[in-house]
Amino acid sequence: MSYKAPTAQIDFILSHVVPFGELARTDRFAEATPETATAILSEAGKLAQNVMAPLNWGGDQTPARLENGVVRSSPGFAEAFRAIAEGGWVGVSADPEYGGMGLPQALNMAVAEMMSGANLALQLNPMLTQGQIEALEHHASDDLKARYLPKLISGEWSGTMNLTEPGAGSDVGALTTRAEDAGDGTYRVSGQKIYITWGDSDVTANVCHLVLARLPGAPKGTRGISLFMVPKFIPDDAGEPGIANSLKVVSLEHKLGIHGSPTCVMSYEGATGWLVGEENKGMAAMFTMMNCARLGVGMQGVGVAEAALQKAVAYAVDRNQMGPIIQHPDVRRMLATARAEVFAARAIGLACATAIDMDRATGDADQAARAAFLTPIAKAYGTDVGIRVADMGVQVHGGMGYVEETGAAQYLRDVRITSIYEGTNGIQAMDLVGRKLSDGGEAAMRLLDEVLDGAKAAQGAHPALAHQLWQAAETLREATQALLDRAMPERFAGAVPYLTAFARVLGGHYHLRAAMAGGDGHRALAAVFMARVLPHHAGDLAEALAGLDDLTGISDAALAGDFAA
Amino acid sequence: MSYKAPTAQIDFILSHVVPFGELARTDRFAEATPETATAILSEAGKLAQNVMAPLNWGGDQTPARLENGVVRSSPGFAEAFRAIAEGGWVGVSADPEYGGMGLPQALNMAVAEMMSGANLALQLNPMLTQGQIEALEHHASDDLKARYLPKLISGEWSGTMNLTEPGAGSDVGALTTRAEDAGDGTYRVSGQKIYITWGDSDVTANVCHLVLARLPGAPKGTRGISLFMVPKFIPDDAGEPGIANSLKVVSLEHKLGIHGSPTCVMSYEGATGWLVGEENKGMAAMFTMMNCARLGVGMQGVGVAEAALQKAVAYAVDRNQMGPIIQHPDVRRMLATARAEVFAARAIGLACATAIDMDRATGDADQAARAAFLTPIAKAYGTDVGIRVADMGVQVHGGMGYVEETGAAQYLRDVRITSIYEGTNGIQAMDLVGRKLSDGGEAAMRLLDEVLDGAKAAQGAHPALAHQLWQAAETLREATQALLDRAMPERFAGAVPYLTAFARVLGGHYHLRAAMAGGDGHRALAAVFMARVLPHHAGDLAEALAGLDDLTGISDAALAGDFAA
Repeated sequence: MSYKAPTAQIDFILSHVVPFGELARTDRFAEATPETATAILSEAGKLAQNVMAPLNWGGDQTPARLENGVVRSSPGFAEAFRAIAEGGWVGVSADPEYGGMGLPQALNMAVAEMMSGANLALQLNPMLTQGQIEALEHHASDDLKARYLPKLISGEWSGTMNLTEPGAGSDVGALTTRAEDAGDGTYRVSGQKIYITWGDSDVTANVCHLVLARLPGAPKGTRGISLFMVPKFIPDDAGEPGIANSLKVVSLEHKLGIHGSPTCVMSYEGATGWLVGEENKGMAAMFTMMNCARLGVGMQGVGVAEAALQKAVAYAVDRNQMGPIIQHPDVRRMLATARAEVFAARAIGLACATAIDMDRATGDADQAARAAFLTPIAKAYGTDVGIRVADMGVQVHGGMGYVEETGAAQYLRDVRITSIYEGTNGIQAMDLVGRKLSDGGEAAMRLLDEVLDGAKAAQGAHPALAHQLWQAAETLREATQALLDRAMPERFAGAVPYLTAFARVLGGHYHLRAAMAGGDGHRALAAVFMARVLPHHAGDLAEALAGLDDLTGISDAALAGDFAA
Repeated sequence: MSYKAPTAQIDFILSHVVPFGELARTDRFAEATPETATAILSEAGKLAQNVMAPLNWGGDQTPARLENGVVRSSPGFAEAFRAIAEGGWVGVSADPEYGGMGLPQALNMAVAEMMSGANLALQLNPMLTQGQIEALEHHASDDLKARYLPKLISGEWSGTMNLTEPGAGSDVGALTTRAEDAGDGTYRVSGQKIYITWGDSDVTANVCHLVLARLPGAPKGTRGISLFMVPKFIPDDAGEPGIANSLKVVSLEHKLGIHGSPTCVMSYEGATGWLVGEENKGMAAMFTMMNCARLGVGMQGVGVAEAALQKAVAYAVDRNQMGPIIQHPDVRRMLATARAEVFAARAIGLACATAIDMDRATGDADQAARAAFLTPIAKAYGTDVGIRVADMGVQVHGGMGYVEETGAAQYLRDVRITSIYEGTNGIQAMDLVGRKLSDGGEAAMRLLDEVLDGAKAAQGAHPALAHQLWQAAETLREATQALLDRAMPERFAGAVPYLTAFARVLGGHYHLRAAMAGGDGHRALAAVFMARVLPHHAGDLAEALAGLDDLTGISDAALAGDFAA
């Protein structure tokens, strides 16, 4: 059983569920025709399926390792990365001026999903390189762009993102890495960074680190952070990797999963760096990088979910226990629910990407607001679905699922990181109820109006489904209003269930669109979603509005199990 | 940070939440006074905390291994098992005639919970040995009892359970291992068994296998299965391990977790066995063993949940990100919800155990029916909570949770098996809506009456909580009635969410009892449960009643992702 790239499923969503078709009517994305989309999906799908997927298990069993200070990657990863680079897949959405394809993020994210499903550990490398490309495109000087973008876009070099320090995780503002002006246009960067994904490797000729650090006298917190480009090898006059920089990989983490992805502790010891963007404005550049990465991580969840589900279905078809277990009602319930959730998460992610593209193509503020609103939902729901479906995959395999050789457990171990990195899902949810509702709920209400319009339009064809969705959307609208009336700590206490409820309603919306456009399969799947996923929105919203008093009413000691105090 | 045995939490439930106190008024359990309970919990708690817990991580990192056909256990496991045996903890509930303590299962299960939380891999050995003791006590001849029970109860020997074969997992009736009468009172057993937990080890002098096999000409399916005692070393005339039997460990599984527990592929090659119980009645004996083990597995879930939660709370107290993260509303929500669920799962398990004990002490058919009804709920909900809380523990640790050295991930990997073995949670749920509702819902309705009575009694003291619980119980009663009117395949499609809803309502019931009896901490925790866990019962019941049509309406191809067909 091997991974089959879901090109037709993605194509269907781009063609019928999200407004991808509008992009080709803009100047910027005039080339993003349905034909281009189909060709891109087909080519990337082949690479994911035939080159990347076969290396997935080997990457788990033979992790990347540190040898004499240099990372040796898992078997076959270097060759596969070359294939990704040569296919141009690092630069799908990158600026054509520097060698990119200039295609919409919607296509880039579709490619990301397939590559993640095939081999999450390896896909992390191009994904982070893409984030770096975005940050440089938006914030770097022309000189830095000229020096780095062609190499990154071609995949000759790769890029990393250095935020976290031992004392500064979710609280980025607490970081202590420092940078000093060397007086020659460069800076000396010193400090330790942790959790640096693909912080070193032998799959590219150079590794370019974007490092957050403080200049002397910089304000405390996030307003005193600047961003620096710190390459492993300093480019020489010909632009090729020159002398080694003063940085090193201290160690690799021993992780639950994504063993093929080296997670490095990095030490910068007066390393030479170049300022990216303005002094003390590093967070803005970092957010550019992270925003792209957040949606990308959501698509990683979708990708692994698809792979895990395919594996579970294949097993359930083959496995006989008084008939094939796929015919057992409870197994079928698990698989059908998972299929319905994978569809929903994929559609939400691609809707988010399309909004990003429409904003970029047209500058439409509504599209920008929609993209901003959907990003945390796409990230958190996509990764929740990834974990849930991978977990379901283990369960469907029974005892076999617990034996590593089966591979079902690897999906669960690998995807488990996705609800943590690029901002935990809790942080995504706080972003949603905090910053993303700070427009007074305008973006939320505009989305809900679209959902209600869709339900109205489907009333004739699918009265029962449309009615259920209508009611859920109305309940969500009321809950949104109620949340807007609350102070922030109280909102935060309900943030995660609120995000989940919103994702369920959006998922219902896209399922209904699919039911309107598609065949029997899509109608049946929409029915599964409305019957088994959507109804839980009510419990989510009750929880979302539960307030904060019950949480502050319980002592830390009681949380630890001591009720005597 | 190390595991702290939750003796006070368990004591509180036994004293105030479940009718454990009634046991001491029966002849059989006259010695099970509150003082005895406290002493047992304290002693077992110390052993779990001080001897077993410190070996947990080492067992993960240095798995049991097969050397020249013999299993070598993880460092320190042999000594710790001796301490368990010498404390008498294998025989807590075993027959005093053969050396057991004769105490209630409620205490045995409390001990099991603590030992599971401390070291799940090691605890599996005494747990399976206990299951074998139960089976022998109920079904073996006096001669077999005399030969095996004292050795098993003292922990000199250990016991295993051999059901599964490559082609016979959940479908036990498909097994093909055969036994032939040797004409001398023994049988020759031949076949291969898989997933044999602690199928061999160096922690005991003998390993006793209970093996399901077919006699020549036996009826097909489960009615043609007999049970045999097949020891690794055949006891000599003095009752000591004698000559080696014709059986061997073929290999060990490479598993996601519980690395310290050797999971063996066993081969029986004309091994000498003794019939346990009657020919072709092996399933009855196996069910005795499994019933005990099912509740035990539920308590394993509770135990690991407790351990994972303690670790997460300790981390959240220490970790500063703009203040200790335990003060962040979303982190506090996760921890408080987990604490509320751990309480509920523990109370359900101990209520089930108490009903088993009351049945055994009094022969009361209502108590037997209650025990039978609660067993699948205790198993499935306890293990669901175990997995959910361990997963939450990883999330609270952020990036640290994904690094193995932290230990949070080990809890998740270890506990993941519990929803699979001893009958998957799907099978538990089918048992609940099938066999356990086959009394026309009598046992279910009797439990719900108790819940409603409890809510009525709490109306004055906790009007809001009592009202919420009352409504949920009424909704559950209606759903139970609706389910009873349906044919089995349709019930099966809703079995898992129905079981979950029932657990939520029962959990609310026990929380309300705790709020009535306990201090501020218990009142606060009950409020958390009613606000954040109970409300999801409505979605569960909607799903439970969704029927089967949507599942049969979707093709296997669509489940696999192919909607073109």
